[in-house]
Amino acid sequence: MSSSGGRAPELRKDAVSNRWVVFSPARAKRPSDFKSKSPANPNPPQQKCPFCIGQEHECAPEIFRVPPDNPDWTIRVIQNLYPALSRSLHEPSASSLESAHTIGNCVLHGFGFHDVVIENPVHSVQLSDLSPEQIGQVLLAYKKRIEQLASHESIKYVQVFKNHGASAGASMSHSHSQMLALPVIPPTVSSRLANLKDYFEQTGKCCVCQIGSEDLVINSSANFISLVPYAATFPFEIWIVPRYHSAHFHEMDAEKAVDLGGLLKLMLMKMSIQLNNPPFNFMIHTGPLHGKGSETAYTHWFLQIVPQLTGIGGFELGTGCYINPVFPEDAATVLREVEIPGSA
Amino acid sequence: MSSSGGRAPELRKDAVSNRWVVFSPARAKRPSDFKSKSPANPNPPQQKCPFCIGQEHECAPEIFRVPPDNPDWTIRVIQNLYPALSRSLHEPSASSLESAHTIGNCVLHGFGFHDVVIENPVHSVQLSDLSPEQIGQVLLAYKKRIEQLASHESIKYVQVFKNHGASAGASMSHSHSQMLALPVIPPTVSSRLANLKDYFEQTGKCCVCQIGSEDLVINSSANFISLVPYAATFPFEIWIVPRYHSAHFHEMDAEKAVDLGGLLKLMLMKMSIQLNNPPFNFMIHTGPLHGKGSETAYTHWFLQIVPQLTGIGGFELGTGCYINPVFPEDAATVLREVEIPGSA
Repeated sequence: MSSSGGRAPELRKDAVSNRWVVFSPARAKRPSDFKSKSPANPNPPQQKCPFCIGQEHECAPEIFRVPPDNPDWTIRVIQNLYPALSRSLHEPSASSLESAHTIGNCVLHGFGFHDVVIENPVHSVQLSDLSPEQIGQVLLAYKKRIEQLASHESIKYVQVFKNHGASAGASMSHSHSQMLALPVIPPTVSSRLANLKDYFEQTGKCCVCQIGSEDLVINSSANFISLVPYAATFPFEIWIVPRYHSAHFHEMDAEKAVDLGGLLKLMLMKMSIQLNNPPFNFMIHTGPLHGKGSETAYTHWFLQIVPQLTGIGGFELGTGCYINPVFPEDAATVLREVEIPGSA
Repeated sequence: MSSSGGRAPELRKDAVSNRWVVFSPARAKRPSDFKSKSPANPNPPQQKCPFCIGQEHECAPEIFRVPPDNPDWTIRVIQNLYPALSRSLHEPSASSLESAHTIGNCVLHGFGFHDVVIENPVHSVQLSDLSPEQIGQVLLAYKKRIEQLASHESIKYVQVFKNHGASAGASMSHSHSQMLALPVIPPTVSSRLANLKDYFEQTGKCCVCQIGSEDLVINSSANFISLVPYAATFPFEIWIVPRYHSAHFHEMDAEKAVDLGGLLKLMLMKMSIQLNNPPFNFMIHTGPLHGKGSETAYTHWFLQIVPQLTGIGGFELGTGCYINPVFPEDAATVLREVEIPGSA
């Protein structure tokens, strides 16, 4: 693997996010030497928390469990005890949502849903410890809950995300993910859709269907490809992209969910081995709910994984432009070559 | 001061950033109880570093000092030893910058300038320890360096920023700020300009000239006003806005610089007292260089201060939408009422 220590800096942007990223290896160690200095939960103690099996009474109300009505559950979807948005407020009318798009200061009641997906019943088991089939079940729980939330006409977007490790925003160490259903389309999503629409109008093609040049690919499965994006915002950022065109995550069937579960497991294991179990976030970027039918031609969902290796300072806050010390092709090479102990 | 503990969540956006922010006090303590858990440099030890007077030989080359040619300098502007962009690369031509705005993946050589402003010669002195006149001198050093950088036709934007405290991105504890000169207009700036232009076209007014309703104002001076923005992204975020219309920070004269120095000092002292010397960033948001003349009618520079009190998780990374646990009017009330020990 070549070191990029002597390489001149570059500015890059890709067609999906359309934001300039500064690639600047000058102050970096070799890409293969990147490690998390504060690994997440190095050895979670044997303990019980409200998310453990048997402690269900300490949680906010359950929405559903897998398998249904079974005390030996494997997955629970529950309300967040401290929701950022409130499901008990009046659902906003179409006209109030419409008027929220006028110029100047705007305000909406904080109606929405904030749910938690407990990924397994045992405190010490992490998502990457589960089998592809079990991770597939977690992904299908996201899908089912999105379908339920989509029945609310006022819910425009559901953000599925996972915070792993306290410094990545996790307040509970028991493995879980979160779903926030919003009455507005958030800024990143509307901006991405506008970029994808531009690309489609100029080329007649879905931009996300085109990505994945060979030097950026990490691994692939029957239906998915994992890669480092051309203008990765963060060092060792990974995208998992469906190889088939699909606007919405929740269109995924059970077979593809297991396939994605396997590739997600592999990426989380590689990241943990290579980068010393870093705190991380993953986010599912999907299409808005109740969108225009024409959007589906150029909208293509994907999953983004971001290990927390570098901080955010005033430059990033001020400009929205990030400094990434690792070139994407170097990160892809490092991640491609990680060996999983015990695998052939 | 009223607690907002029982208040329902809200979604707000303002006309400047045009991004939805979730205000959600449900999980928060009372606004007046917010403190940094990891204060920045609580008691910087008596030590020497390359930024100290007498250690100039350990630094990258100097650009200028104040006063000029004086060994007893008060301010030095120097090159960053580990620049994110390189001043020694070929300056990009107008046509290569133009072609960088095409659709799809784009790349530019990382030409640019990355400078450091050493705000005073003594290791233990923080920016807020300086007098309004001395802070005014620092602001005038930014101005002078921006004017120098503006002589490069390919430099489109200069981001002035300060990281205070390691967790806010400062790698040196000696008080300093940074300036990054870019060959592109960064995403936050182009998006803000588009919003301000929309507002101007619909109302005939500069949007920033209009902000500052009374319940959001913290303090004011002859030429500036400090306030919490209507849709503050972060708890206790502060903007200092010129009361006169001006597109570019570097148009400011020496008298106004001292006036701004005084209000900036007051805000930094209030933040330190109220929030337990939190790590913070400040950023100067100004107009692009070599922009269209028509832009100056709706562009209005301001200074943004962000104390680092909350982390960023997967929701914020995924959506670009932030959850702020403190309502802006509560933050403004708290900051308005902070008393500076020893002042009348």
